[in-house]
Amino acid sequence: MRDVVLNILLDNLGHFVSGEDISRQLGITRAAVWKYIKLLQSQGYPIESSTKKGYCLRQVPDILDDALLLRGLDTSVLGRKMEIHSSIGSTNARAKELALNGAPEGTVVIADEQVQGRGRLGRSWISPPGKGIWMSVVLRPRLFPQQASRITIMTAVAVANALKRSAQIEVGIKWPNDIVCGGKKLCGILNEVHAEPQVIHYAVVGIGLNVNFSQEDLPDSIKDLATSLKIEKDKEFCRVDIIRAILQEMEKSYLQRLNNDRFTELLKEYEAHSVILGKRVRVIGIGSELSGYAEGFGEDGSLILRLDDGRLETILAGDVSIRGESSYV
Amino acid sequence: MRDVVLNILLDNLGHFVSGEDISRQLGITRAAVWKYIKLLQSQGYPIESSTKKGYCLRQVPDILDDALLLRGLDTSVLGRKMEIHSSIGSTNARAKELALNGAPEGTVVIADEQVQGRGRLGRSWISPPGKGIWMSVVLRPRLFPQQASRITIMTAVAVANALKRSAQIEVGIKWPNDIVCGGKKLCGILNEVHAEPQVIHYAVVGIGLNVNFSQEDLPDSIKDLATSLKIEKDKEFCRVDIIRAILQEMEKSYLQRLNNDRFTELLKEYEAHSVILGKRVRVIGIGSELSGYAEGFGEDGSLILRLDDGRLETILAGDVSIRGESSYV
Repeated sequence: MRDVVLNILLDNLGHFVSGEDISRQLGITRAAVWKYIKLLQSQGYPIESSTKKGYCLRQVPDILDDALLLRGLDTSVLGRKMEIHSSIGSTNARAKELALNGAPEGTVVIADEQVQGRGRLGRSWISPPGKGIWMSVVLRPRLFPQQASRITIMTAVAVANALKRSAQIEVGIKWPNDIVCGGKKLCGILNEVHAEPQVIHYAVVGIGLNVNFSQEDLPDSIKDLATSLKIEKDKEFCRVDIIRAILQEMEKSYLQRLNNDRFTELLKEYEAHSVILGKRVRVIGIGSELSGYAEGFGEDGSLILRLDDGRLETILAGDVSIRGESSYV
Repeated sequence: MRDVVLNILLDNLGHFVSGEDISRQLGITRAAVWKYIKLLQSQGYPIESSTKKGYCLRQVPDILDDALLLRGLDTSVLGRKMEIHSSIGSTNARAKELALNGAPEGTVVIADEQVQGRGRLGRSWISPPGKGIWMSVVLRPRLFPQQASRITIMTAVAVANALKRSAQIEVGIKWPNDIVCGGKKLCGILNEVHAEPQVIHYAVVGIGLNVNFSQEDLPDSIKDLATSLKIEKDKEFCRVDIIRAILQEMEKSYLQRLNNDRFTELLKEYEAHSVILGKRVRVIGIGSELSGYAEGFGEDGSLILRLDDGRLETILAGDVSIRGESSYV
């Protein structure tokens, strides 16, 4: 019922609806309406009340609320089951737990705060309350484990497209799994796969997107390396709108572009967003360091590097830095 | 202390040791010695006691006991941490749980019985009490996820070598992950990997080996398809000896033969044991069925099939049957 009251207010965003109207529509007493209004107010909804005019939701607050998220989410798989936490260790850890226990594909775990947020290779990921999108999605792709990188590629492209649409920002993709803006990290993607050698049981793809950080919110250690939508666009964003856009973009690719011909197309989009393609880069891999020109990406998610002696090297894993940028080591 | 008493009896297997000798060696009373003897007897150890001669362990019983297992286990990683269950859902499920919570590589889970034993692709695996080896090992291989099949290959070769050594039986390997004898399944291997696209977090490799089944113990549905060491060799085996041999063989390969040059050698051993190489086979894959000659195996664990029109096809996943055998479909 609370969700229905909220939806009526959202339908009339910025306008008053009388308590009488709401009570009539829902067949509940005006006292009951008032109870839900108070509940919503206590949850952070800026609802104005006037004895004459009724109730008015002034603006959509930046609250992670499934009623808000589901409103206008036109997906058929992703986000149809959702868990929202005010605080959690790590959304990927929770999503893995759910996946292991049979959660359907498309299950989404979102947290306002992560206290043990993790990035690629077990690195920590700063995820304070209310400042970003810390979200993980359970997928059950019909892919071979050798194709697991397609999930990362798909997600990177989806985030880039979703940010363009919902935050009017052009971002780049830095191989393998970062979304960057002006050379700084805006978003990281953590793709974890559980598989037998011949079949993927499930994949959990985590997205950590810095939304409403200001420069001062960033710890000194990453001030020069990280950015946020707020820093880039000089305004705050409503996370729910961005989450919705990401899930919609992801679903399009997930259902239609992971396999073969269509994947080639997706990989082209990934390349079009790449900030390293055609640039001179240094790659620190496991026990190796290579410099060269980034020539392309393999269908297995590898980076193809043209070394100084002309040879091509295929790199499966590594950290890339671009000559001339602050993170170049 | 119980383990020390047991070890003294094992050191003198088939011979009497006086209660006085044991109490002196351990600095405990003869009453305490008697308490441990009773405990061991209650756990299934056939210990004869004589007021004059003392105690004699007649033979090593087929009990899954870590004191027995660790005795003479000359590994440095595999089995240094062990969990033995009388009954469990599935050893792979438990090992995954342990791995997720940081269990060190080499951690082994063994159960006398599995009530929800699982084979490849979620198929059930019959694992009644006392009849087989139901065991899972946590590994943290320095491999790319694309190389996960190496774990299966390594384990299949290790089981084949261990069975030759500890049960004097020659077995074959049926791609991708079965150990067979006379065309029937003796052992299955279930390799599950948890990874980011660029790094394996952990692998859990499960081994289900039919040891002391007799023909009558097998359910009708698998009578023609499965066999056991007992059926093949017409005698019962002590599971602990076989487990020890498997862990030792696995460790040799795990530490030394997973990477590059040495892996090629391991793959040759796999091929040498293959029961399908050079034979006409039918492969039922995901949504496809192919017939041809099995020409070889790729480094990624794939099967290379020569089709009737001469083309080579690389198959990542599937079930193989050999023409002329009962399971040929």
